[in-house]
Amino acid sequence: MAAIKCIGVLTSGGDAPGMNAAIRAVTRTAIYNGYSVKGIMRGYKGLVDDEIIDLQSDSVSNIIQQGGTMLKTARSQEFMTPEGRRRAYENMKRSGIDALVVIGGDGSLKGACIFAQEFDVPIVGLPGTIDNDLGGTDATIGYDTALNTIVEAVDKLRDTASSHERLFFVEVMGHTAGYLALNGAIASGAEAAIIPEMDTEVDQLGELINQGFRKSKNSAIVLVAENPATGGAMGLAERVKQEFPQYDARVTILGHIQRGGSPSAIDRIMASRMGEASIEALMEGQRNVMIGMSNGQIVYVPFSRAVSHDRTIDRGAVDLVRILSI
Amino acid sequence: MAAIKCIGVLTSGGDAPGMNAAIRAVTRTAIYNGYSVKGIMRGYKGLVDDEIIDLQSDSVSNIIQQGGTMLKTARSQEFMTPEGRRRAYENMKRSGIDALVVIGGDGSLKGACIFAQEFDVPIVGLPGTIDNDLGGTDATIGYDTALNTIVEAVDKLRDTASSHERLFFVEVMGHTAGYLALNGAIASGAEAAIIPEMDTEVDQLGELINQGFRKSKNSAIVLVAENPATGGAMGLAERVKQEFPQYDARVTILGHIQRGGSPSAIDRIMASRMGEASIEALMEGQRNVMIGMSNGQIVYVPFSRAVSHDRTIDRGAVDLVRILSI
Amino acid sequence: MAAIKCIGVLTSGGDAPGMNAAIRAVTRTAIYNGYSVKGIMRGYKGLVDDEIIDLQSDSVSNIIQQGGTMLKTARSQEFMTPEGRRRAYENMKRSGIDALVVIGGDGSLKGACIFAQEFDVPIVGLPGTIDNDLGGTDATIGYDTALNTIVEAVDKLRDTASSHERLFFVEVMGHTAGYLALNGAIASGAEAAIIPEMDTEVDQLGELINQGFRKSKNSAIVLVAENPATGGAMGLAERVKQEFPQYDARVTILGHIQRGGSPSAIDRIMASRMGEASIEALMEGQRNVMIGMSNGQIVYVPFSRAVSHDRTIDRGAVDLVRILSI
Amino acid sequence: MAAIKCIGVLTSGGDAPGMNAAIRAVTRTAIYNGYSVKGIMRGYKGLVDDEIIDLQSDSVSNIIQQGGTMLKTARSQEFMTPEGRRRAYENMKRSGIDALVVIGGDGSLKGACIFAQEFDVPIVGLPGTIDNDLGGTDATIGYDTALNTIVEAVDKLRDTASSHERLFFVEVMGHTAGYLALNGAIASGAEAAIIPEMDTEVDQLGELINQGFRKSKNSAIVLVAENPATGGAMGLAERVKQEFPQYDARVTILGHIQRGGSPSAIDRIMASRMGEASIEALMEGQRNVMIGMSNGQIVYVPFSRAVSHDRTIDRGAVDLVRILSI
Repeated sequence: MAAIKCIGVLTSGGDAPGMNAAIRAVTRTAIYNGYSVKGIMRGYKGLVDDEIIDLQSDSVSNIIQQGGTMLKTARSQEFMTPEGRRRAYENMKRSGIDALVVIGGDGSLKGACIFAQEFDVPIVGLPGTIDNDLGGTDATIGYDTALNTIVEAVDKLRDTASSHERLFFVEVMGHTAGYLALNGAIASGAEAAIIPEMDTEVDQLGELINQGFRKSKNSAIVLVAENPATGGAMGLAERVKQEFPQYDARVTILGHIQRGGSPSAIDRIMASRMGEASIEALMEGQRNVMIGMSNGQIVYVPFSRAVSHDRTIDRGAVDLVRILSI
Repeated sequence: MAAIKCIGVLTSGGDAPGMNAAIRAVTRTAIYNGYSVKGIMRGYKGLVDDEIIDLQSDSVSNIIQQGGTMLKTARSQEFMTPEGRRRAYENMKRSGIDALVVIGGDGSLKGACIFAQEFDVPIVGLPGTIDNDLGGTDATIGYDTALNTIVEAVDKLRDTASSHERLFFVEVMGHTAGYLALNGAIASGAEAAIIPEMDTEVDQLGELINQGFRKSKNSAIVLVAENPATGGAMGLAERVKQEFPQYDARVTILGHIQRGGSPSAIDRIMASRMGEASIEALMEGQRNVMIGMSNGQIVYVPFSRAVSHDRTIDRGAVDLVRILSI
Repeated sequence: MAAIKCIGVLTSGGDAPGMNAAIRAVTRTAIYNGYSVKGIMRGYKGLVDDEIIDLQSDSVSNIIQQGGTMLKTARSQEFMTPEGRRRAYENMKRSGIDALVVIGGDGSLKGACIFAQEFDVPIVGLPGTIDNDLGGTDATIGYDTALNTIVEAVDKLRDTASSHERLFFVEVMGHTAGYLALNGAIASGAEAAIIPEMDTEVDQLGELINQGFRKSKNSAIVLVAENPATGGAMGLAERVKQEFPQYDARVTILGHIQRGGSPSAIDRIMASRMGEASIEALMEGQRNVMIGMSNGQIVYVPFSRAVSHDRTIDRGAVDLVRILSI
Repeated sequence: MAAIKCIGVLTSGGDAPGMNAAIRAVTRTAIYNGYSVKGIMRGYKGLVDDEIIDLQSDSVSNIIQQGGTMLKTARSQEFMTPEGRRRAYENMKRSGIDALVVIGGDGSLKGACIFAQEFDVPIVGLPGTIDNDLGGTDATIGYDTALNTIVEAVDKLRDTASSHERLFFVEVMGHTAGYLALNGAIASGAEAAIIPEMDTEVDQLGELINQGFRKSKNSAIVLVAENPATGGAMGLAERVKQEFPQYDARVTILGHIQRGGSPSAIDRIMASRMGEASIEALMEGQRNVMIGMSNGQIVYVPFSRAVSHDRTIDRGAVDLVRILSI
């Protein structure tokens, strides 16, 4: 394999706070080590459509604190076809890009995996998603910020909740993973978390809520992971209202505000360290790995493991919500 | 009328950030001027049920920065009956309370008005509501904080909105008033505000949105005042989706997080000044007035005017949203 | 005077949150009304050095929420000389600029005044400064945000202050005006404010502090306006330490963090309305006026009045700090 | 050893955000498992002075989101003497307390160690300090919140820094440890961190700053760990001003605001998990251990190791600041 001279970087899939910090670290570490750097706009779509820009050190000034991604992100239908990927490869080569750093979630890494195999391109991935659903890493870039956004919102609800006999359902994101709902519940002192990984019947929930109200608490807050199968917080509130008409149930849907905001300290530090590590990995000849963080150390995670959904919800955390809301 | 020796204070209706700052100012100014102070729990309900506590200077320490209300708030069915008010009056007298400061919105001041007339009780009101829908005052306690909560949420949406061709509907509170939606739209740079004071047809809205997307903007954010008549943001999104299926419309319902949070500087200052003024008003022999703020000065507003809903939406502000989103 | 076709906008002096919102409103309102718009970089310096850029509607996208100023700001020695202003005028004419909107404080408006007189240039000013020290307007752009920054900082101090017998001095900005210190003290529930407008002897201060500690409060927080004449918080703390060695005095200097941060809702709304009004003023043939806000309405303030320092500190506010900290 | 029936909990030393979340978790987990719980006010001082209160489940309601500590904290001279500790032990026994959970830093754990040895008291420690300077745990309760406070402050400085040719020195806490300064610098994109663990000469620093300014950056931000030996940021600024008079150097001293504020999500989750673990440890017969977190798992750390200061600064982090500020 010829030596790498120019590295391309892109963000793909749902955006996550900290993606800009990662772009900055990738760009400056590469330049520091003598590489030139290109930014690919709108994820794989920009590779297919040839939207590629030069990145200098000052192109990434003053972005570490900003949410979103300066390279934008999109989903590309064309990149899912062999013809689309062929065009992507040709544009990449024409631009002089020898290797890619892909920042994104599950779907983005799967795309990277196929592309790398088809065209023998060195690719290193960075875990960028608020959902925290990638294997082999303790956390993903954006998860900590999203968690703090949820916790700040629930804190505000608490202020008003403690005045009325009220039941609040707060719908949070998480794709099919319950990390945000469960850890958000622990951090905000919520009474319960409804997560896709566990079946919770309405009568069980009613029991928890009844118990909360009985204990002289005059309100209860339940975090609900988004879940098209159950209708999310809105669907749950409807069912609870029918069974327990005595409670005045209200719904908050946080929606996409969870994807935005200035990244937290940890997300910036992790993005910076992982961005640096992605260049070091390419320098060491690594390819088809995602950079992960384990026990405070950088690790290389094969793409197949990263997208394996082998992470499981900690039963201890589920118990903790219950114990601490007595 | 005998001299006032003991002043009671209560918060009533929906809670608003800054109510605690008002309670603190009422309590300390009264004590400073030689009165004793009692706190009535859960609004008029606590007056009917005789839930009355002593307030000293240090009872209100360290609350100026907290959302909600340390005196709680509730709605009382009993106080709406002559018998309920009779019991309230008797409890008030038995506790030695000679005059009341009532902190709340529209309904709370109407209750105060009836109570004052029936039993010849000196009452001064403070405008405490995030809805900003009281007459004779430039602003109500809690409005500025709620506005900032909305703006922070929309800022986060912007981060993610600018990545995808997306249309966001954000439902905000306001009872039947559009202040939060309209001024929230100006402050957050949203593309449009849908408010109860104006009819907006779906095709008009579509026109605005089309125009936004045409102008190379790749997203649009619309603030929607809650409105049971139209189904709010959820109802609007449904109708827009049918007419304009090309846009990927998403809904955020901020809900009761708008009532919470640490009060803004202005809400604390206004609550402090109004709280002080309420005691001065009672000392001057004022009664049946709400304290208002006009042009930076304290004014006394007759209850009848305060609840008259004579405030009108500024057409200039509606135009400003349109002009600034070009 | 020939008709205005092209309007230049600049920010000058110390930056203030909301300047970007003002630039956006000036630019878009001007374009909406058929004018072309140029941005002048680094204040008057960019006019002297011919650093002038085109502004389109999308040049000001996504800046309403950002602190600082996209046009940068600087102080210019050359513009203080007749030769410098001559060059500035020539560059302005060569760029086709017929009129100016100047966003800044005291010094910036004085400069505008001289420039307008020497070269017969239509200029409208916007009050952009955190110091709130301009005449004829209820508030300046940036003041509300700075006040909230101070209040959030003091809230954090309170958390820790209430654990130890400690005395905290917090130095805040304000140039020679005490608004930030005084209103910051009211909003944060501080024990005292030391402002340039009033002489406060160390023994008076000691009295206040002693009184605070006597009343079973275990801490005291004093806001101190920056003041080179007295050495600010650091100087005061030294003197207090000598006189009252029993207190463990600590100093926080907030410094330039008060100039930054995402602008508050009110600063954005005021900047938007004032920016719109500056274009309307030019359309009406106004010149040499600053846009002010009085009683919620736009007013035109002659430059001479704006910089007259005729605003006085409200004695009632000074009393309020004392009364509410009992 | 007789069975434990009643557990006492105290917070000691400098307060840290998340201490309240820890108190809540200790209290509720203990009650859930059948123990009674007592709170000891003002750390060891309250043990010596017999300031001990009952804690029920609802005593710790609504505190998870609050900075500071509801049990207060203080330093106790008396507890440093054998007589003081004797009295502490007698009060503890008289109150029926069989075991202690001590939440604090270095000094607090050393005190626990001596007390446990002298009187054979089962004690479990929780790492509560913003300084992150305890051994055997990946992080301490409060560190993440303090880091975010620093990063938010520097973000605000950046807004204004990018307008002027200015050099900002920001002094942060850390006792004798550079974690806050170093990781704060990475997260905020500062140009340099001056930490006690490394010698940095003024001319080296000047080199870094010169380099920053040369690279068309028009400002530089340097984080400085507090350090009585060098005079901290104030002392450093003085020396830099003498050597490099061309830069306009400004100083911000964040001071005790770093100890306050609502705890971050991670600090609350960690405090909750560690609080639960402290009770489980006592149930398992553990004593004289600090609860730590390693690789996401709870670990027991002998007191001697916790206070050994065996943590070292990561050289890679030092390099990262330099590389990413090119």
